[in-house]
Amino acid sequence: MHDATLSVPDIHCGHCKSSIEGAVGELDGVSNVDVSIETRTVDVRYAEPSTRTEIIAAIEGQGYEVA
Amino acid sequence: MHDATLSVPDIHCGHCKSSIEGAVGELDGVSNVDVSIETRTVDVRYAEPSTRTEIIAAIEGQGYEVA
Repeated sequence: MHDATLSVPDIHCGHCKSSIEGAVGELDGVSNVDVSIETRTVDVRYAEPSTRTEIIAAIEGQGYEVA
Repeated sequence: MHDATLSVPDIHCGHCKSSIEGAVGELDGVSNVDVSIETRTVDVRYAEPSTRTEIIAAIEGQGYEVA
C-alpha cells in the first residue's frame, strides 16, 4: 500500500471536499481518501497493482515455474 | 504498453500452451499472449495501470489542479 499527500490549492469548502473524496474514493485500488480543507491537501492510501506480477502468478497457478 | 518474454522451461506440448494462454489471456491489462512450445517462452503484451495517475486524473476531472 502507498500513502500520498497531494496538494490541491483550490480546495476551499465542503463541496470541494465531498466532490474530490467521491471521485477518488470510487477508484479501484483506493482504500482511503481524506480531503483537508484547512491544509488544502488530499491524503490517499492506495495499492499499485502489477500486471507483470499477476501474469507470472497466473502461469505459476497453472503449475509452471517461470525461470 | 509493455512487451515481455518469459522463460517457462516446463512448456512442452499443446496442453501447456493452451492452459497458459488461457490463464494469462483473461487477466486485466493483458492485450496479447502467445506461448511458443519450440522456445518454451511466453510472449505477452500488457499495460501497467497506475493508481496514482488515476487519482490525479480523478481530482482534475472535478475541476481542481494538483500542484
